[in-house]
Amino acid sequence: MKAREIHLASRPSGWPEPDNFRLVEVPVPALEPGQVLVRNEVMSVDPYMRGRMNDVKSYVPPFQLDAPLDGAAVGEVIASESPDRAVGDVVVHNSGWRDLAVLPAARTRVLDTKAAPATAYLGPLGGPGLTAYVGLVEIAPMKEGETVFVSGAAGAVGSLAGQIAKLRGAARVVGSAGSPSKVEYVRGLGFDAAFDYHDSPVRERLREAAPDGIDVYFDNVGGEHLEAAISALHTHGRVALCGAIAQYNATEPTPAPRNLALAIGKQLTLRGFIVTSYGHLAPAFYAEMAQWLREGRIRYDETIVDGLENAPDAFLGLLRGTNLGKMLVRV
Amino acid sequence: MKAREIHLASRPSGWPEPDNFRLVEVPVPALEPGQVLVRNEVMSVDPYMRGRMNDVKSYVPPFQLDAPLDGAAVGEVIASESPDRAVGDVVVHNSGWRDLAVLPAARTRVLDTKAAPATAYLGPLGGPGLTAYVGLVEIAPMKEGETVFVSGAAGAVGSLAGQIAKLRGAARVVGSAGSPSKVEYVRGLGFDAAFDYHDSPVRERLREAAPDGIDVYFDNVGGEHLEAAISALHTHGRVALCGAIAQYNATEPTPAPRNLALAIGKQLTLRGFIVTSYGHLAPAFYAEMAQWLREGRIRYDETIVDGLENAPDAFLGLLRGTNLGKMLVRV
Repeated sequence: MKAREIHLASRPSGWPEPDNFRLVEVPVPALEPGQVLVRNEVMSVDPYMRGRMNDVKSYVPPFQLDAPLDGAAVGEVIASESPDRAVGDVVVHNSGWRDLAVLPAARTRVLDTKAAPATAYLGPLGGPGLTAYVGLVEIAPMKEGETVFVSGAAGAVGSLAGQIAKLRGAARVVGSAGSPSKVEYVRGLGFDAAFDYHDSPVRERLREAAPDGIDVYFDNVGGEHLEAAISALHTHGRVALCGAIAQYNATEPTPAPRNLALAIGKQLTLRGFIVTSYGHLAPAFYAEMAQWLREGRIRYDETIVDGLENAPDAFLGLLRGTNLGKMLVRV
Repeated sequence: MKAREIHLASRPSGWPEPDNFRLVEVPVPALEPGQVLVRNEVMSVDPYMRGRMNDVKSYVPPFQLDAPLDGAAVGEVIASESPDRAVGDVVVHNSGWRDLAVLPAARTRVLDTKAAPATAYLGPLGGPGLTAYVGLVEIAPMKEGETVFVSGAAGAVGSLAGQIAKLRGAARVVGSAGSPSKVEYVRGLGFDAAFDYHDSPVRERLREAAPDGIDVYFDNVGGEHLEAAISALHTHGRVALCGAIAQYNATEPTPAPRNLALAIGKQLTLRGFIVTSYGHLAPAFYAEMAQWLREGRIRYDETIVDGLENAPDAFLGLLRGTNLGKMLVRV
């Protein structure tokens, strides 16, 4: 039996190109005790993967050259050498970017696909949902009645962050997105206002959308967005530094918020976070999110690309913003 | 009776000039019930006053044109219409920049000048001490065994911050200062290492002084210092944004840390603060600091300029860094 895998063929400098990736066929090894063989059905591509393509020390090790990429995926167990997993179990795990994955059963989690479709575990019930939740609850704790600004609001994390803010009592939620149709989409999610950040400057668009200022900024973008948010934040405002997609492909140091010194007088808190450090909040998050999903109070959308061989294109599209909601690849 | 006051004659653009200030003689009004007349002995000049010379909304109202500046001062009550203050009481209050001050008794605090000299209440037992303490205890909470970097380490706040860090168990404390003699001074305070930031780049000097990185950065300077600190900070590192003296006189937006996006992966927290928001920590601070002073474990130095008429020069010197420790004016 052969597996198809996407390998990192070379490290991108700036924007990744298709030839940074290579589709490789490899033999599937025999299972060792405790391992399972999973046939992946859907895999996730996420912005953070761009950072792992650089050979720099970071919070997760860089991807290795001539080895498969990895990332979240859901699939079905088709062979098991573990008493804990049965053939037919649908599981989520981190060995994406391949059609067949051999991995320890302990590194899979069995999904309740009656409660929610499997792909929800890559979105609202997965990393993106927990990231949005942790950012608003723990990192830049939002209080009822506050105004929240979310950048990248049409993306997987941003779209959930804005909805969670509303559900937790924000008075006003403003989102930015990268095209008129995305802005429409964001409004449809229940954001009170949304703007297209290509209609620069962001500072003026934000002032129109939140004329009385903001209390919390959920940053997926960095750069000009962060500067605009610092200007708009009230005293004791909070920023969750979640992503900086505007900067991931930069080859030079990127412009930083020139008004950062305002953080002193405004007593702002800017806090970076990685969701994997907040696993202790996952149980509370799952309970709340599952309830919201059952009640139909959270909307999530998926942009699905077909075929493992198109996963690099899906990833490149994600960086260019061709997705609405979660970008997934049907393997 | 006449009082001499320093008024703001015009708002500086960029570096203040002597003619932004004016010495004015005004009649001393008769005391109303509840008021006291204080003969100021020593007044403080502080970097934050530069911000108040601009006509912008901030955490404290801007200074008014053709009106006296204000700020911390100590002096003796020479007349009282309040049952709570007696002639001869030595008090600290906020009506500096004048030789005679009329103000409500309730806005003065009587000093125990047996416990410490009156000027200590403008330094280690005053705003600078509390600022250093709040920054290390509350804003960028330092743990025993950590490495702490303090910029502006020869100044009133920085010199205390480094010493408090050592007293609270920091493994290593590094300071930066603006001249070779200040660096010598900072080493003499017990900092484990110190460097002259004019020997740029700060990033390299900091790497030499703290080769294993830092956990906490107490920022009095902003700009290049903050960028260097972000590079050197460990995961879960903390920054107390206390001052940005490098930027106070800028007429253009100032360069910001181009590596701020590192705060995501390193999970850094950057937090601005104003000491007046942390009055609730003052009792614990006074108790601890008074004990350290009694035990001779805190050193503080003063640069004293004589004569109210020279207060503007003292302030300009402070911005240029001519002081070691607290800059004061003997009225």
